[in-house]
Amino acid sequence: MTTSTPLTGIDLATAAELAAQLRVDSVRSSTSAGSGHPTSSMSAADLLAVLVSRHLHYDWDHPHAPGNDHLIFSKGHASPLLYSVFKAAGVVSDEELMTGYRRFGSRLEGHPTPVLPWVDVATGSLGQGLPDGVGVALAGKYLDQLPYKVWVLCGDSELAEGSIWEAIDKAAYYQLSNLIAMVDVNRLGQRGPTELEWNLDAYARRAEAFGARVLTVGGHDLAEIDEAMAIAADGTGGQPTVILARTIKGRGFSEVEDKEGWHGRPFPPDMAARAIAELGGERDLVVRGPRPDPGAAVAPPAPATGPDGGPPAAPEYALGDKVATRKAYGDALVALGGERPEVVALDGEVSNSTHADEFAKAFPGRYFEMFIAEQQMVAAAVGLGVRHYVPFASTFAAFFTRAYDFIRMAAISQASIRLSGSHAGVEIGADGPSQMALEDLAMMRAVQGSTVLYPSDATSTAALVRAMADRPGVSYLRTTRGAYPVLYETGETFPVGGSKVLRSGDGDTVALIGAGVTLHACLAAADRLAADGISARVIDLYSVKPVDTETLLAAVAATGGRLVIAEDHHPAGGLGSAVTAALLEAGPQTLRVAHLAVRQLPGSGTSEELLAAAGIDAQHIAAAARDLLA
Amino acid sequence: MTTSTPLTGIDLATAAELAAQLRVDSVRSSTSAGSGHPTSSMSAADLLAVLVSRHLHYDWDHPHAPGNDHLIFSKGHASPLLYSVFKAAGVVSDEELMTGYRRFGSRLEGHPTPVLPWVDVATGSLGQGLPDGVGVALAGKYLDQLPYKVWVLCGDSELAEGSIWEAIDKAAYYQLSNLIAMVDVNRLGQRGPTELEWNLDAYARRAEAFGARVLTVGGHDLAEIDEAMAIAADGTGGQPTVILARTIKGRGFSEVEDKEGWHGRPFPPDMAARAIAELGGERDLVVRGPRPDPGAAVAPPAPATGPDGGPPAAPEYALGDKVATRKAYGDALVALGGERPEVVALDGEVSNSTHADEFAKAFPGRYFEMFIAEQQMVAAAVGLGVRHYVPFASTFAAFFTRAYDFIRMAAISQASIRLSGSHAGVEIGADGPSQMALEDLAMMRAVQGSTVLYPSDATSTAALVRAMADRPGVSYLRTTRGAYPVLYETGETFPVGGSKVLRSGDGDTVALIGAGVTLHACLAAADRLAADGISARVIDLYSVKPVDTETLLAAVAATGGRLVIAEDHHPAGGLGSAVTAALLEAGPQTLRVAHLAVRQLPGSGTSEELLAAAGIDAQHIAAAARDLLA
Repeated sequence: MTTSTPLTGIDLATAAELAAQLRVDSVRSSTSAGSGHPTSSMSAADLLAVLVSRHLHYDWDHPHAPGNDHLIFSKGHASPLLYSVFKAAGVVSDEELMTGYRRFGSRLEGHPTPVLPWVDVATGSLGQGLPDGVGVALAGKYLDQLPYKVWVLCGDSELAEGSIWEAIDKAAYYQLSNLIAMVDVNRLGQRGPTELEWNLDAYARRAEAFGARVLTVGGHDLAEIDEAMAIAADGTGGQPTVILARTIKGRGFSEVEDKEGWHGRPFPPDMAARAIAELGGERDLVVRGPRPDPGAAVAPPAPATGPDGGPPAAPEYALGDKVATRKAYGDALVALGGERPEVVALDGEVSNSTHADEFAKAFPGRYFEMFIAEQQMVAAAVGLGVRHYVPFASTFAAFFTRAYDFIRMAAISQASIRLSGSHAGVEIGADGPSQMALEDLAMMRAVQGSTVLYPSDATSTAALVRAMADRPGVSYLRTTRGAYPVLYETGETFPVGGSKVLRSGDGDTVALIGAGVTLHACLAAADRLAADGISARVIDLYSVKPVDTETLLAAVAATGGRLVIAEDHHPAGGLGSAVTAALLEAGPQTLRVAHLAVRQLPGSGTSEELLAAAGIDAQHIAAAARDLLA
Repeated sequence: MTTSTPLTGIDLATAAELAAQLRVDSVRSSTSAGSGHPTSSMSAADLLAVLVSRHLHYDWDHPHAPGNDHLIFSKGHASPLLYSVFKAAGVVSDEELMTGYRRFGSRLEGHPTPVLPWVDVATGSLGQGLPDGVGVALAGKYLDQLPYKVWVLCGDSELAEGSIWEAIDKAAYYQLSNLIAMVDVNRLGQRGPTELEWNLDAYARRAEAFGARVLTVGGHDLAEIDEAMAIAADGTGGQPTVILARTIKGRGFSEVEDKEGWHGRPFPPDMAARAIAELGGERDLVVRGPRPDPGAAVAPPAPATGPDGGPPAAPEYALGDKVATRKAYGDALVALGGERPEVVALDGEVSNSTHADEFAKAFPGRYFEMFIAEQQMVAAAVGLGVRHYVPFASTFAAFFTRAYDFIRMAAISQASIRLSGSHAGVEIGADGPSQMALEDLAMMRAVQGSTVLYPSDATSTAALVRAMADRPGVSYLRTTRGAYPVLYETGETFPVGGSKVLRSGDGDTVALIGAGVTLHACLAAADRLAADGISARVIDLYSVKPVDTETLLAAVAATGGRLVIAEDHHPAGGLGSAVTAALLEAGPQTLRVAHLAVRQLPGSGTSEELLAAAGIDAQHIAAAARDLLA
């Protein structure tokens, strides 16, 4: 792709030429596409020109080299600038830039995604790139133990997102001196001035108060930028660095500089021509900045050991013993960690509830406490995944709602992350509705490419935790607070996309379908029905997405389509939706469905009281089955 | 409920007695319930004792008096303390406290909810009470224009949530000197020490950097607390106040003071007895603090006027004109604002895209710019609703995922808030997947008691915006980026829970169901099918929740259950789920469903390219209909 011998050892005069080229190409690409954000690119062009020519240690021909620095555009809308950098590095051709940007089927999407090998994470939902970068920097400092830096370009508007402050806070807590946020303070947001405009002192006070080292520069003064980047990259001091750059939106084209009304608008061709002329015309520099240490390699991990010196044993549970699935999550994670050094864990200050604390005790060097910052927790998991670690992040299932935008974006990043949500549903009892996950299955099923698992016993939980480690995309495990009987023997297999038929017979006239606490209620209901001579099939739907269509079709065929589906979740988007969607996808169906779910706002009480009040206990399941047969 | 003549004009010695009573009652209530957070209550008891006896202006017999101060427990797990305050105020009996707390059917839930008349908002998901308080304080300062204060008790752990910093930032921006955050810095979270422990200087620097006035006190020194609250309540300075109180978790019971392992654990009865003894035994004080101005009343709002001096006209659109539904949202909101002075609007720095800017221009005093802080935006809407305003909050539909925990909690608060999400689905085109809402219908349908609307044209959008104003609970409107033909004449009605049959005939053999952009594709598909002699019914499913079961059943009956459902959304939890769930809920069904949805990760492109690639355009709809008839 490189069209000429790249320039190396670049001085600031050449960097200035590069900056002009980046601006020109940002204008050209967005005008050619008829959409995009040229002015937001032009403000940051000097920062990027100095960075890529003099400070970013990057082997452009080997984007996955372990020693490479990382470059993340948290302000993803400045994609014209990023792609112009790729052209300047000689890895994207001018033709691709001019004919691909924002076009159908092109990898040069409107906002960067990792369909490009030089892009770590998808951005475009503001306030996420820096939290993602914290995850990459955690990997660099604590796991890879390599000297690479993580350079994140932030916009000033996105500093209004709380997630940015979660990120700076955690970066300081973990002493991530390998993380550098470059803030393009161009004063103008989408619809007008930002909250703090050019009050760089205010930004500086905030970032310093959150524990960062702050360097303030004129964002178009290449020498100041260069000096700041050199300081930032020294890696000492144990603090992340925030470079605050005072910039001008649309810099370089006097017609739009610092003017409102030009956010997210390409220039019409005549204006683009004037802009290019004012910027000195087109250029075709190919530049290469400093290279990483070619010998950089990840240190071999220490072998994991269990309490007795050998690897931690895989958990085994005795049939009928009461074990909470959240406990099995912790047990299984420790065993997995013992086998696979790339497994890491994070938690949002509730590890003694989610049982992630077992992993933290066994592998303290591979556990990252995120305190009560669920957005940063998910972003850190994404960032750790960039460096090929296998992150498991846990909190109460209800509190993953806090990070839904991050989970959604993780899917667009094609990140493989594993989320474990404990304390699902009204089953939790006295704590009340704020702590009850009743939307999580809907939320997680709606994520592109996701896997949603909801085991009912400890044995299946342990097996599914193991399966999650190799699952691409966003995997979600829903666990239950209370302890319920172990249903399966050690060694039983639980493929993702499968289910278990726990009761069945030739005379089945109805199928009871549950998962988690309602599966136990389905079993009890089947006993009640059997006492009345009604043979009910019971299906453990531990894999909610993908779902076991074949077993469901067989149940429909056997029972004349009589299904009772019970779930500790609001009615929309959960088990009921998963079952009926799969069946109707498979072909024409005649169905008689009783869907039992949590339809009213619950309060406090015991598990039994709340399950009964919601109409999802054994008695209600049995009654619904009888109604279907009436 | 008051059992003795309340004490008034309380001195600090009596406040100390009250503090001891609050601790004793926190211990007693949580021990009686067998769950709850006594130690987290004991750390804040002195703050609350001084507040309610000497600073909180509150008419306990008239909790909805306009002049009342507001008290929000952002650390909702300290509910034993809050309910002990209610007992001390004489509005909850000791018997209710001892037999109701955390019990089934009781209003004294594990975390506070507004089933209690003295509770404004549900808390328990940390980091939300303060953002909610910002909304109440906005109402007080800018709308009610009353001198009441909003006192928010925060925990120290929750200061790790970015939403807390969004709140302090916005409180400073809007100069909310009527907002006081009292932070109970007890050093211990659920599983161990907090990130900053007793580093009150660090908290102070952060809060000051974000624009707050900070007062630091010993949290068990009643005189210091009293002085700080007097300063905080002076209402001058134009800044919110943060009172940082250095406290001891479990204060007053030496066995647990400042000890790990006692978070969220009630004391066993023997320990409780020792705690009560150490605290000086049970008390039965009934106290009343200062009263609000009994004449406080909300100023009558200025009449709204349109550009010509009269009230803004309701929008009217000509059949066939191309108008984006997001534009109709803005138009309708302005008209509604002209009629109803209690209507207010908020936006997350994209008002020129959502068209909320039209309202901002028409009614600047009733518009609150929240910049890019969607969590705070939703919380502010909840807080404005506490004071009976009718908030509409808008951003890109994709970015409501950022606030899902706040939306979930709004439902538990039984708040009536209206959310408008623009730029739904792949229809947005070149910006790419980060900006495409493809999970929002699933997310919003799963919210308890929610309303989900997805109009296809400007006329129906305007009507639905009007309907949202009177709709209880969380209402969500999904709007589209592009402009599509007006389908309905002015004056047509669009009841929530209804639908429109746009094409139908006696010979209908298939029904095409869509909303938004896919409804237009359904119409085009029906034309293609008609050319082949296939009569297709077309249903505009503008009300996704509740859904029009009757019309759907009629379509099933007419077509032999042949339904093509097309949606610009991921397959899980959206239109398809809404339709099939409603039908199966109504009774046994034989269905032949083709469900067209966005099943792969989209990229950039034109609307047409992306709708075609996702298989949800007219051609795919027509093909699916033909397949069902094959």
